Amino acid sequence: MIETPYLLFLGDAPDQLAAKVAQGIKDWRPENSVGQFRLDGCGADVGIQDMTLAEGLAAGAKTLVIGVANRGGVISDKWKAVLVEALEMGYDIASGLHNLLRDEAELVAAAQKHGKNLFDVRIPTVDYPIASGEKRRGKRCLAVGTDCSVGKMYTAMALEKAMVARGMKATFRATGQTGILITGDGVPLDAVIADFMAGSIEYLTPANDADHWDLIEGQGSLHHMSYSGVSLALIHGGQPDALILCHEPTRSHMRGLPGRDLPTLAQARDTALMMARDANPDVKMIGISVNTQHLSDAEATEYLSKVEAEMGLPAVDPFRQGADRLAAALEAV
Amino acid sequence: MIETPYLLFLGDAPDQLAAKVAQGIKDWRPENSVGQFRLDGCGADVGIQDMTLAEGLAAGAKTLVIGVANRGGVISDKWKAVLVEALEMGYDIASGLHNLLRDEAELVAAAQKHGKNLFDVRIPTVDYPIASGEKRRGKRCLAVGTDCSVGKMYTAMALEKAMVARGMKATFRATGQTGILITGDGVPLDAVIADFMAGSIEYLTPANDADHWDLIEGQGSLHHMSYSGVSLALIHGGQPDALILCHEPTRSHMRGLPGRDLPTLAQARDTALMMARDANPDVKMIGISVNTQHLSDAEATEYLSKVEAEMGLPAVDPFRQGADRLAAALEAV
Repeated sequence: MIETPYLLFLGDAPDQLAAKVAQGIKDWRPENSVGQFRLDGCGADVGIQDMTLAEGLAAGAKTLVIGVANRGGVISDKWKAVLVEALEMGYDIASGLHNLLRDEAELVAAAQKHGKNLFDVRIPTVDYPIASGEKRRGKRCLAVGTDCSVGKMYTAMALEKAMVARGMKATFRATGQTGILITGDGVPLDAVIADFMAGSIEYLTPANDADHWDLIEGQGSLHHMSYSGVSLALIHGGQPDALILCHEPTRSHMRGLPGRDLPTLAQARDTALMMARDANPDVKMIGISVNTQHLSDAEATEYLSKVEAEMGLPAVDPFRQGADRLAAALEAV
Repeated sequence: MIETPYLLFLGDAPDQLAAKVAQGIKDWRPENSVGQFRLDGCGADVGIQDMTLAEGLAAGAKTLVIGVANRGGVISDKWKAVLVEALEMGYDIASGLHNLLRDEAELVAAAQKHGKNLFDVRIPTVDYPIASGEKRRGKRCLAVGTDCSVGKMYTAMALEKAMVARGMKATFRATGQTGILITGDGVPLDAVIADFMAGSIEYLTPANDADHWDLIEGQGSLHHMSYSGVSLALIHGGQPDALILCHEPTRSHMRGLPGRDLPTLAQARDTALMMARDANPDVKMIGISVNTQHLSDAEATEYLSKVEAEMGLPAVDPFRQGADRLAAALEAV
């Protein structure tokens, strides 16, 4: 686990979009950050206190989190100087970059010299077991999708917030790099060895209180030819009691697969339920989460009503409307 | 690719079962071996010429293949002495053991000194791509299973033999360690990183002649909670034109998952076809391959007739009967 609170490193991010990891931490775990640390020319601002490394330490920060994508996929000399300084001052560093911190000799040397940790959350650090398929106490909800990148992480995060507000016991379980940095823990599922995928999800969602819900971040789609195996491992490792189907209605084809149509909502529901019943015969789909960012207010309202009528399930956009209706549906399970 | 022909190292195998990799090579690629090399006390014999390392070399062997499981999961000093000698004499060494050759300093040093290769087929050596989902020329048949270890490799191997005998163009494509050692090439799918599983199968089964069949070794089962993700990656990466359903009728539960029932043949067929249609809407299931080793002749005959009537597809045990009826069904596709 990565130690909190964080100081969020925004570096020389060219724009706000490049800082989406930092934005996610600020949006979903504001208590995890003491401030943001920006270099000259930084074009991003996540709207929290600007701090130097020294000010961050004084405010209690334990870990400098790289909250920004690096330009050109290279850790620049400018960044390296800052990161070495942070290690010298007593920070751990956490990163979800494709280029690993551990591959940078200067950072490794500084971390060793000062007894500090480098967390590359893109790479698993646990030897996960083979899935046992054994039933575990507690409840689990998994976000599944008609496609990749349709809002599965956002949905699970929003659901956690809405459930906690209702006084329910709920924990978001991260399965991707951004989610891991936001919460400080999780499984980087796309980098797990094939044989251990389902086992890693069992590990992530252990036995818990009978009335506790794990909200498992979904990945990919059972219908996405590049990543479907990962999606099925989530279903069989997670043994969900409830599924939420996530969808983005303006896609003309599966992400990255021109010419491949998305499944219909009914197809995606049927496939997910059929596969999930092997793990838990009582599994139910309890709602539809729609990412309506490319629709107008009026279009979104109309689309959600239509889906709700067709599917006979609550259909909401958690960004526009919050996830309370989905939380209520889980409470009724 | 591992260079053939091989000398098969049986070491001090306690019994015949321990030498199943060597037996597989002898059964399916007899032309790939010049002989077997056994140490004192070896209890296995795959029925080919016994040779020393020197005799193997003289007979043209290029690679010493470890055709036997090692006792206690340790590469013993006795083995190591033999393997170092083989490298000194000019052999490459190939192994599917869990303990990697590359983790043995003496072997690495000897291989470097003599310019020879150590092949650990348990570990991928290729950077596989993300699956593109693009249609490829040529045809592909995938063996799917109701469970793990029901005869999928055997079925694909027997099918290759029967198809070649019919004059069809057919290539077995290995996805497991034993198959890779038998053929000298393939993808160790269970050790591939999650994101690249489907892509590794696209890589394994590239565009080919329009009338050529790749016979893809299946892994796991869509219904096996530990490994289903691997099975789905095979379906979406392989884009099969034809499926063969493999089954072992005496299992009381899914392998390694006490209390979890096997799917029925009809369920397994429906699930596999449903998932495979995303990749290829024209996919067909063309036959059932039943491992009847735990049935008497009479029971096997009765069971196969019953399955054939129920499923409306050829049902054969390729070990007892050969795979010609399955080859004929593929020829008719």
